[in-house]
Amino acid sequence: MKMVIDCLGGDNSPLANVNGTLRAMRENPDISVIFVGDEKEIREILENASDYEALKGRIEVVNAPEIITGEEKPTDAIRLKKDSSMIRSISILNNDERVGAMISAGATGALVAAVTLRIGRIRGIRRPAFCPILPTMNGGIVGVCDSGANVDITARQLLEFAILGSVYMNSAYGIEKPRVALLNIGTESEKGDELRRQAYGLLRDSEDINFVGNMESRDLLSGKYDLVVCDGFSGNVLVKTTEGTALQLLKKIKKDIMSRGIYKIGALFMKRMFAEEKEFMNYQNYGGSVLLGTEKTVVKCHGSGDEAGFAVCVSQAYRMQAANMNDRISEILKKYD
Amino acid sequence: MKMVIDCLGGDNSPLANVNGTLRAMRENPDISVIFVGDEKEIREILENASDYEALKGRIEVVNAPEIITGEEKPTDAIRLKKDSSMIRSISILNNDERVGAMISAGATGALVAAVTLRIGRIRGIRRPAFCPILPTMNGGIVGVCDSGANVDITARQLLEFAILGSVYMNSAYGIEKPRVALLNIGTESEKGDELRRQAYGLLRDSEDINFVGNMESRDLLSGKYDLVVCDGFSGNVLVKTTEGTALQLLKKIKKDIMSRGIYKIGALFMKRMFAEEKEFMNYQNYGGSVLLGTEKTVVKCHGSGDEAGFAVCVSQAYRMQAANMNDRISEILKKYD
Repeated sequence: MKMVIDCLGGDNSPLANVNGTLRAMRENPDISVIFVGDEKEIREILENASDYEALKGRIEVVNAPEIITGEEKPTDAIRLKKDSSMIRSISILNNDERVGAMISAGATGALVAAVTLRIGRIRGIRRPAFCPILPTMNGGIVGVCDSGANVDITARQLLEFAILGSVYMNSAYGIEKPRVALLNIGTESEKGDELRRQAYGLLRDSEDINFVGNMESRDLLSGKYDLVVCDGFSGNVLVKTTEGTALQLLKKIKKDIMSRGIYKIGALFMKRMFAEEKEFMNYQNYGGSVLLGTEKTVVKCHGSGDEAGFAVCVSQAYRMQAANMNDRISEILKKYD
Repeated sequence: MKMVIDCLGGDNSPLANVNGTLRAMRENPDISVIFVGDEKEIREILENASDYEALKGRIEVVNAPEIITGEEKPTDAIRLKKDSSMIRSISILNNDERVGAMISAGATGALVAAVTLRIGRIRGIRRPAFCPILPTMNGGIVGVCDSGANVDITARQLLEFAILGSVYMNSAYGIEKPRVALLNIGTESEKGDELRRQAYGLLRDSEDINFVGNMESRDLLSGKYDLVVCDGFSGNVLVKTTEGTALQLLKKIKKDIMSRGIYKIGALFMKRMFAEEKEFMNYQNYGGSVLLGTEKTVVKCHGSGDEAGFAVCVSQAYRMQAANMNDRISEILKKYD
């Protein structure tokens, strides 16, 4: 199972990308990789790994030291930076038959644009969609599809997101019959705009998903849903507001603790708990945001992720392929042709 | 300054509505009110107030004991429940020239529909919009307009929301030159769909607002913005996700504290702090969600709000009128005719 690793573009690249990948390779002996980035840097990191000799046979390195940043216009970046690690990685993913997946922590906009342009879509899928994973308050997880790849969509696409996400939550996380909800501004079936009302009908009538109705955004973390489908604009708001609120609130609590001596004393007893809460809300622990609907697997890691976060993303890509996720999606979509 | 108070429809109605209003009346001697609801119930609550005799001259009561619930279809409720407290309150607001504002904790959908139908709009405003207030992490507040009254909108309406919200944040909260942001999926000017790009231009070019650019949802509570404008669908997601995440996280922390003896000990030292965090995230402390753009002021209180929450809403309506908010909005909108 060969994967291409874009080694540039993240805050902790290339160190987190290379070492994270090695970590996943140690856990899954089936994984072999092509590292793409500044070859010299990559080789230095590799040679520092104590077990490099043992892993060597499963590693290739391609030199493409240019970086695409988040500030660049995606279309310009794709056109002008053909030798960037990201565009080269996508070319390898597209052209090399042995390669089934790509993992990147680089600029999201450029990644979506380049993947949409260069990597084929599964038959029946109009456009790929992002599906990040969030932790729920009862210890489970919930996927959100789409979280930002598509801002203008149709009801039929919301059905596609439901099918893609359902097979994904099952393939990568082993959830049987994922409970699918439609993000809406109320739970009643007639709520929302025309798009939502149409989608509600399509989702309800599909036999291939376990549709449980509309979800109000305040219930995202309740643990009552395994997958939420939405347009990319409101999905982006949903995911980033959750992340932002949790981080801001934990930051405020920390500040408030420092404001009084008695709170500081109390916090000493709870040090481990607060560390755990922070870890709990640390999204990278739950994996990257997968781009679903493409013929080959693409996982977008958090730009600020570390080695552990990158390792989770590589393992995630491995599980998706091991479960033949895309074949299962294709099989279902045939019915909707 | 006369206001009509819808006394039914909230979780704690009519007690919270009546007592909350009396509390605001004690603070603001200019306020006089018409209570609408079950007259017998209202009179009982009034007679229990120790200073009822002193307030009596500023109080009228209208009997309309029927309730509109959140489960009813708004259009049906408006048509069939003409004697409900909500519809009667709106009639009084519409017909009684002395009455400048209405406060209700009743069903949001019916309220928006009935107000849109019966109460005139300020010239230049296509449809009224909700503007709830949230606390920011540095002790300030931020308004979100629209948070759910309009799911299909134009770029011009986003400009209207910016003008409405700016004058509101100034009139009701004394914020000079409110910093206005456009909710988007990235901060760069070309981000988002066609609607957002068009709106960005209109907002940037308007001299009547202090536009500071796009805002990503994760920054809502950062304190960098005084007003965020958005379509009602994503605004609803923004507000409810913030509320939901904060409540869920505080609930989780509480549960985690109970899981270990040492945490319980620590929490004893921090009891007051946790109570304050909860109070901090209690939206009703910051007032209701004002329906902006109507010729007369309409404030929607939290359905689950208590006496204190209702009092805040009444005072809010008072400040908006005292500042001649709607006249100021009309004056600005003349330029855009």
